Amino acid sequence: YGKNTIKFLRLHTEGKKHFVKEVEVCAHLRLTSPQEYLEGNNSLVIPTDTIKNIVLVLAKKNGIPSLEQFAIDICNHFMTTFCQVAYVKTYVQEVPWQRLHEDGVPHIHSFICVPDGIRFCEAEQCRNGPLIVFAGIKDLKLMKTTQSGFEGFYKNEHTTLPERHDRILCGELFCKWSYGECKDFDFDCIWKKIRECILEAFAGPPDCGEYSPSYQKTVNCIQMLVLSRVSQVQVIEVVLNNTFYNVVDMKNLGLTNDKEVLVPVEAPYGSCACTLGRK
Amino acid sequence: YGKNTIKFLRLHTEGKKHFVKEVEVCAHLRLTSPQEYLEGNNSLVIPTDTIKNIVLVLAKKNGIPSLEQFAIDICNHFMTTFCQVAYVKTYVQEVPWQRLHEDGVPHIHSFICVPDGIRFCEAEQCRNGPLIVFAGIKDLKLMKTTQSGFEGFYKNEHTTLPERHDRILCGELFCKWSYGECKDFDFDCIWKKIRECILEAFAGPPDCGEYSPSYQKTVNCIQMLVLSRVSQVQVIEVVLNNTFYNVVDMKNLGLTNDKEVLVPVEAPYGSCACTLGRK
Amino acid sequence: YGKNTIKFLRLHTEGKKHFVKEVEVCAHLRLTSPQEYLEGNNSLVIPTDTIKNIVLVLAKKNGIPSLEQFAIDICNHFMTTFCQVAYVKTYVQEVPWQRLHEDGVPHIHSFICVPDGIRFCEAEQCRNGPLIVFAGIKDLKLMKTTQSGFEGFYKNEHTTLPERHDRILCGELFCKWSYGECKDFDFDCIWKKIRECILEAFAGPPDCGEYSPSYQKTVNCIQMLVLSRVSQVQVIEVVLNNTFYNVVDMKNLGLTNDKEVLVPVEAPYGSCACTLGRK
Amino acid sequence: YGKNTIKFLRLHTEGKKHFVKEVEVCAHLRLTSPQEYLEGNNSLVIPTDTIKNIVLVLAKKNGIPSLEQFAIDICNHFMTTFCQVAYVKTYVQEVPWQRLHEDGVPHIHSFICVPDGIRFCEAEQCRNGPLIVFAGIKDLKLMKTTQSGFEGFYKNEHTTLPERHDRILCGELFCKWSYGECKDFDFDCIWKKIRECILEAFAGPPDCGEYSPSYQKTVNCIQMLVLSRVSQVQVIEVVLNNTFYNVVDMKNLGLTNDKEVLVPVEAPYGSCACTLGRK
Repeated sequence: YGKNTIKFLRLHTEGKKHFVKEVEVCAHLRLTSPQEYLEGNNSLVIPTDTIKNIVLVLAKKNGIPSLEQFAIDICNHFMTTFCQVAYVKTYVQEVPWQRLHEDGVPHIHSFICVPDGIRFCEAEQCRNGPLIVFAGIKDLKLMKTTQSGFEGFYKNEHTTLPERHDRILCGELFCKWSYGECKDFDFDCIWKKIRECILEAFAGPPDCGEYSPSYQKTVNCIQMLVLSRVSQVQVIEVVLNNTFYNVVDMKNLGLTNDKEVLVPVEAPYGSCACTLGRK
Repeated sequence: YGKNTIKFLRLHTEGKKHFVKEVEVCAHLRLTSPQEYLEGNNSLVIPTDTIKNIVLVLAKKNGIPSLEQFAIDICNHFMTTFCQVAYVKTYVQEVPWQRLHEDGVPHIHSFICVPDGIRFCEAEQCRNGPLIVFAGIKDLKLMKTTQSGFEGFYKNEHTTLPERHDRILCGELFCKWSYGECKDFDFDCIWKKIRECILEAFAGPPDCGEYSPSYQKTVNCIQMLVLSRVSQVQVIEVVLNNTFYNVVDMKNLGLTNDKEVLVPVEAPYGSCACTLGRK
Repeated sequence: YGKNTIKFLRLHTEGKKHFVKEVEVCAHLRLTSPQEYLEGNNSLVIPTDTIKNIVLVLAKKNGIPSLEQFAIDICNHFMTTFCQVAYVKTYVQEVPWQRLHEDGVPHIHSFICVPDGIRFCEAEQCRNGPLIVFAGIKDLKLMKTTQSGFEGFYKNEHTTLPERHDRILCGELFCKWSYGECKDFDFDCIWKKIRECILEAFAGPPDCGEYSPSYQKTVNCIQMLVLSRVSQVQVIEVVLNNTFYNVVDMKNLGLTNDKEVLVPVEAPYGSCACTLGRK
Repeated sequence: YGKNTIKFLRLHTEGKKHFVKEVEVCAHLRLTSPQEYLEGNNSLVIPTDTIKNIVLVLAKKNGIPSLEQFAIDICNHFMTTFCQVAYVKTYVQEVPWQRLHEDGVPHIHSFICVPDGIRFCEAEQCRNGPLIVFAGIKDLKLMKTTQSGFEGFYKNEHTTLPERHDRILCGELFCKWSYGECKDFDFDCIWKKIRECILEAFAGPPDCGEYSPSYQKTVNCIQMLVLSRVSQVQVIEVVLNNTFYNVVDMKNLGLTNDKEVLVPVEAPYGSCACTLGRK
């Protein structure tokens, strides 16, 4: 198979107001015959350069109504146009440009990059198979400074970790979910709703939070809340890359450190992941 | 000289509400004698490990009232405690944790990382010299989709660039300014005000923007606005790393691309920089 | 499942001669029950910290005879010791320290880091299943300045790429292969032999090279040569991330550029991949 | 001032043998008047695009005899051609392509990237001033597994570091030196000689090494050896970014770890630097 990454910016205007989307598109093709590998016969090969042109032309003609719709458009184009394509997958990722505001007033053509979680989606299709759409968020860094512990774990002669009932929970989240039959979804609206669910499940109620007995349980809470609130989601995968923090021992510096100064632990670096679907 | 980087988190609570600052501190020392280099005599050398302990102890004792105050505290400690130190510079950079909000309600102990410009500061002092404080913002990515051009530049036989009166202006900003005599400044408040000046000067009025004839002129506008609005700033340096975008030529694809689809130009990659002070 | 990364250095000496291996180990566990996710019951969970201790203890007791043997040892330990482990995968990657030489004389305890392709391996096992071992090389950057072209590809209205019979072929290689039944393999020796095969298949004979009609065909040549020369390899996957170079058009600068000055094309960025096994 | 980065490849052939240089050039200009900043008057500005063209045309016409000569050529061109240029600095860095060998036989057109220290140089000139040439090596990672300690350092109540007489010395070296009057230097030959001096001074004699009482002293040894052996070097700057390794304490795992298993210490991360010239 072959893969190609193209980065570009799509600009459109309504009156004097500008709208901008900058995306990175990665198209992934598998042909019906591997003859270009085995025989060096290029007659069915669609060059990277052509794939780039197609993506740019589709962006020009259709715009980018939503990342998901754009990914679907690309898949459809390749399946419809090239009978030698057996499988196509399109990944689209957004550069998080947000409209600039001055004293609360939105600016008509200025933007600031705010990477607090990157939105992406995927559309994939085998010839004669259904078109499947995924969406997700990545590089979302979150921290809870209390209401987190880790106790009652398995112990043997290699265990040196003490039990803790009040630690920092910090990590980088990756979430990816699949939609069932894609009818007339408002992908932008659903994505925002899911992002809110993730934050809510991670943090708990604003006035008191909710105790997390492990990174694993927090992963599960996120999945359960999304599945319960957003009916369009069929399966949800969550990966949480953990950053551990140790309370600095200041005894031999003559001080008591009551979880006031902590250092991140670079290694071991852990992550936990789970995929959950509906029955 | 020697340099050391320490990363840690300072947590403090008021009632049930948590406040968090995660910083990276880099301390830079020069000793009065280079004997450890020339003779391998370590008797005056302050180990990296000791510097780390000092920074953590100061954070524990004083907290981090502001990045600037913390940098000043560290400088003062080294100058006061170690007579073998001839020069000290402290750089402090913040991990941009922001309090999480659920439906507009602030969460008491949950945070999200929002890297839309990183705040940093520097304090430096030579023995018997004044303590000088700098502050700044870096990695601030901004874009204007119109009201920018580049015309009337120098031309000769190596010129191939066409004149443009409506292009994308996009770049990553680095700003660093120095304060004069540091009395009782509200460093947090001043920093926020300067950030707003930068955005305003970059973008112009929200309803129409302001035409930029070059990256250089935009750099200058930022400097002029900060100097005019913020009296505590003595000198301001601005570096703008440019990202150029080319309108994709779609003629041989049979289409007219009216600044709708653009691709970032990876090379040549430019930057312009200027330092401006008061008379 | 959970994943953990640990980086460490294993030193051993023979007489006055030092030997060093610095590795990054990533252990990947799946337990028989997901109760820690669903119920927050940690009683079967093996903490990251314990996993780190086990890896370090194994390194201390057994050393690292080869990356592959070390990965096998870790898998065996987890399967034998913890009945709650349903699946274990161990990834081991080497920091490419090479002994320093002075005028051809090897130094007894000094090393230089030479990252011309990174060696890695993987061992994985399901409970009651066979132990499978993979090895590989990654981040291997290669270039041919001639004997490469791309012609006869599929063309339609979106094609703008010209045919080329003499271009630069440049890319970053990733190769991963699996061994069949792992008996008493000399993993170090086999790995070196495969690396030589890769270079030979990429470059062709030293005095004339061999024409490559596409990146895809070069990928296939590498696979075929490895499979034909190294009987222990059962399946081989090759991914080639392409860097394209364009001959700079200097016509409007009054010069003829006969493939003398070329610039790398950042986007579109392509890659091709293929997995090939024995019949 | 303005800065521009251009990356390209220069290919030349002698008979059937190919020679390749891939470089990154960064040109840095300051004009006699800051009118483009203050007034938005672009009439003296040399666009990034023109600078790119000039660098490529010089590479096409002159080739890249050595990095240093190429940097000198660029400086000369800008000073001679543009009277509005007050200052020019050119930085040139090499992608470390090495000719591929098969069984010791050099390949006529295939190369492998071997980044064991990156070569770079700088040429700078003020109008009416001398042309100054610097050269250097960066990203050179070295390790000594013994013959290194750190003892007799300054101690006070914040000291927790134990004295050590047998530790790992590991770091990433940056060296930059200036040449005096640049006559007819063989820059390639001198650079190779200096690289050998650096390795020799770092490691000591191959059969026994040489004890290093500190990172600082090792930095000085490198400088002294280069200055004593290479008469063309006037001033030499060395920066050593230290990676510390801790012997893992395995007492509560029931084992004695005799400097066999060590882990890199991520923070505090230190560096020491010194600039030394001739009297």
